[in-house]
Amino acid sequence: MAGLLHVTERMREHTGGMKQIRVELINTGTEILLGSIVNTNAAWLGNRLFEAGFRVERETVVPDGYAINEAMRESARRADIVIVSGGLGPTSDDVTREALCDVCGVDMHRDEQVAERLKSYFERRGISIAECNFKQAMVPDGAAVLENSNGTAPGLVMPASGSLPMFILLPGPPSELKPMVEQSVMPLLEDLADEDIPHLRVFRLVGIGESDLQELVDDSLHQVEGLEVAYCARIGEVDVRLVGSEVALKQGEARLRILAGAYMLTPAGVSLEKAVVLHLAEQGLKVATAESCTGGLIAKRITDVPGSSGVFEFGWVTYADRAKTKMLGVPEDILKLHGAVSEPVVKAMAKGALDRSGAGVAVAVSGIAGPGGGTPEKPVGTVWLAWAFRGGETRTEMMLYPRDRGSFRQMVSQKALAGLLDARRREQVTE
Amino acid sequence: MAGLLHVTERMREHTGGMKQIRVELINTGTEILLGSIVNTNAAWLGNRLFEAGFRVERETVVPDGYAINEAMRESARRADIVIVSGGLGPTSDDVTREALCDVCGVDMHRDEQVAERLKSYFERRGISIAECNFKQAMVPDGAAVLENSNGTAPGLVMPASGSLPMFILLPGPPSELKPMVEQSVMPLLEDLADEDIPHLRVFRLVGIGESDLQELVDDSLHQVEGLEVAYCARIGEVDVRLVGSEVALKQGEARLRILAGAYMLTPAGVSLEKAVVLHLAEQGLKVATAESCTGGLIAKRITDVPGSSGVFEFGWVTYADRAKTKMLGVPEDILKLHGAVSEPVVKAMAKGALDRSGAGVAVAVSGIAGPGGGTPEKPVGTVWLAWAFRGGETRTEMMLYPRDRGSFRQMVSQKALAGLLDARRREQVTE
Repeated sequence: MAGLLHVTERMREHTGGMKQIRVELINTGTEILLGSIVNTNAAWLGNRLFEAGFRVERETVVPDGYAINEAMRESARRADIVIVSGGLGPTSDDVTREALCDVCGVDMHRDEQVAERLKSYFERRGISIAECNFKQAMVPDGAAVLENSNGTAPGLVMPASGSLPMFILLPGPPSELKPMVEQSVMPLLEDLADEDIPHLRVFRLVGIGESDLQELVDDSLHQVEGLEVAYCARIGEVDVRLVGSEVALKQGEARLRILAGAYMLTPAGVSLEKAVVLHLAEQGLKVATAESCTGGLIAKRITDVPGSSGVFEFGWVTYADRAKTKMLGVPEDILKLHGAVSEPVVKAMAKGALDRSGAGVAVAVSGIAGPGGGTPEKPVGTVWLAWAFRGGETRTEMMLYPRDRGSFRQMVSQKALAGLLDARRREQVTE
Repeated sequence: MAGLLHVTERMREHTGGMKQIRVELINTGTEILLGSIVNTNAAWLGNRLFEAGFRVERETVVPDGYAINEAMRESARRADIVIVSGGLGPTSDDVTREALCDVCGVDMHRDEQVAERLKSYFERRGISIAECNFKQAMVPDGAAVLENSNGTAPGLVMPASGSLPMFILLPGPPSELKPMVEQSVMPLLEDLADEDIPHLRVFRLVGIGESDLQELVDDSLHQVEGLEVAYCARIGEVDVRLVGSEVALKQGEARLRILAGAYMLTPAGVSLEKAVVLHLAEQGLKVATAESCTGGLIAKRITDVPGSSGVFEFGWVTYADRAKTKMLGVPEDILKLHGAVSEPVVKAMAKGALDRSGAGVAVAVSGIAGPGGGTPEKPVGTVWLAWAFRGGETRTEMMLYPRDRGSFRQMVSQKALAGLLDARRREQVTE
């Protein structure tokens, strides 16, 4: 990271007294233009930079090859900071490094420190290093290296100089780009950000649809001066995004809490699974899962959360009828009489999971994800859910959500997890 | 749709004898640049156009406002067809129509047919029409109208003229854009497409890294005339994308199979979980899963595949030590002696799952996903995997993959699933 200290200094000189720093984003990769992959890096960077006080003013996607040079030259004429993702890897179509040299009129040299890191990266994994990898140790003269903690291609920062903007080159894979931005780029940019940043807060709500939510809160939120409001609906949840001054944001949040607080996840903007883990930990409760149609998705989402081992120990994926009987003790005659997708069966699954795990609460789901398996009586998209509480009642719910397999499974996992929070509300009421 | 007949005629004149028609895409919308929404329109259009014989050569995202005019002017200098999405709605920040007039130097007029359609759209829904909606009936002189069967904003096509390219203006919402492209834009473009369309094939490989793969196959693939080769690495897998004539593609595929066939998923381009389900079904095998650190992800991925109930019935998520003992019969003394992340424990987990499920093969994983839980001896990223085969041996493997929690879990699930395919190869060898 030597050489980075002077980067922000030079940047300040470059932008002079300007209020708003102009940022442009270039994503390279033929696979993006062909639609083989969706450009999630752009959305993530746009959002992350906005949080830090920068607004991306243009985003350009170009194929691998000489188009990168042209795009960099064009962005250089408009922007103060140009962020380029992709094309830093070891293969022959990775040419962003060369493009930077071309645009800035510099040569490159082999950086022995980077070469050593590459060697030890492969050594640690017990793999012999292919020669082409050393291409990644080539550093344009004057550029600083950003260490890649999750891959081989290091990032590069070329300080602003003369009429040229600051260039930041990042690897394309999101699992490498994101940590590099957090660890190296943000500390670099934070000093540069506009002091008078508009603030952004995202609130996540579950258990209410987008249009109902809008009817409930939109008029009131728009009465707050200088507050921008936007909604973003996903399967089984809606995000409300508020942008404005700190004062406007506080007013907006207060209104949202009064009108729709019952649906808001806490802390604000947290994922549903995280809200569930935090809530269970608070209550000293453990949860067990018994899944049929979701096939492990509910357990997977809970264990996505670091520290979830404090609240989750046992999960069953009982995909077949005989698994429900053998693993959870669901009586065969109930399965025969009512079918696997039925209230008595999910009840028995939840109780079986509760007894066998010793957990405080167990959630069970059984449904028809499709595309096959539907009947006129129980069409694709039918699901039964049950939540069994230690020493208490078992709640059940039926839902019909006839969508594609992936959306259905996501929605069922939303419902199952949200039910663990509903429990909280219900308990608070009866206490 | 009157006025469209002459559009393709003029386009032909414009491109003259040119072989490849240059297409650029402009997406407008501040919400895309802020990262509030992911630009799925771009991926969908890129893919759909490529199938029809066109290649998007550049994609530009600009905020609502005057930036649209600039972006259109720039694309006009490079491209034969410029497709613009967004900014055709009724509100004040919808200015793409005006930008088209500015760039083409034309005025606009109210199209009474469009105005009538707007009125009846609202009447059918029993809503009174707000005056601002009639903005959508304004049509730039010389442009043809594309009917919107799923919303109010009609699309627009401005034929190529002089040095200006053909402009196609589409509404932003995917639910309106996609049907309009299918119904109106594709019929218009199909006649223009290069007869000799390049074909695309994607091959997915697991068990080999990007740079090793390139060393193995790149030289050979580049010897095939007219074959474009690109690599795209994700966690635990690499896609090889071949583009070219049918002949070049066949030659490329043959070379790839000879050199790296052992790593290729079949059928070509299929996901790993799908390849596993197909393979197990072919072999008449069922698989059971016993997961610790992946917390259900392996079962989730298998059951993502429609029809997976034929090969998967039982899954255990044994997140706690006592769950491993209680659910799978892992002896307590082994857990105490070796710790949960150890070869003896994953072996016992896999055997326990095999016995309890009656499956033909069971896979077990136990590792430290982090961020907590690491020790100097077993750092975060350590994982043991085991595959137990009915009436056969149990294979085990240790891996160190010190990344963020999500990447680690994804990699472990890759390894676990790929091991089920390795089994196939191994069996084919010993048969």
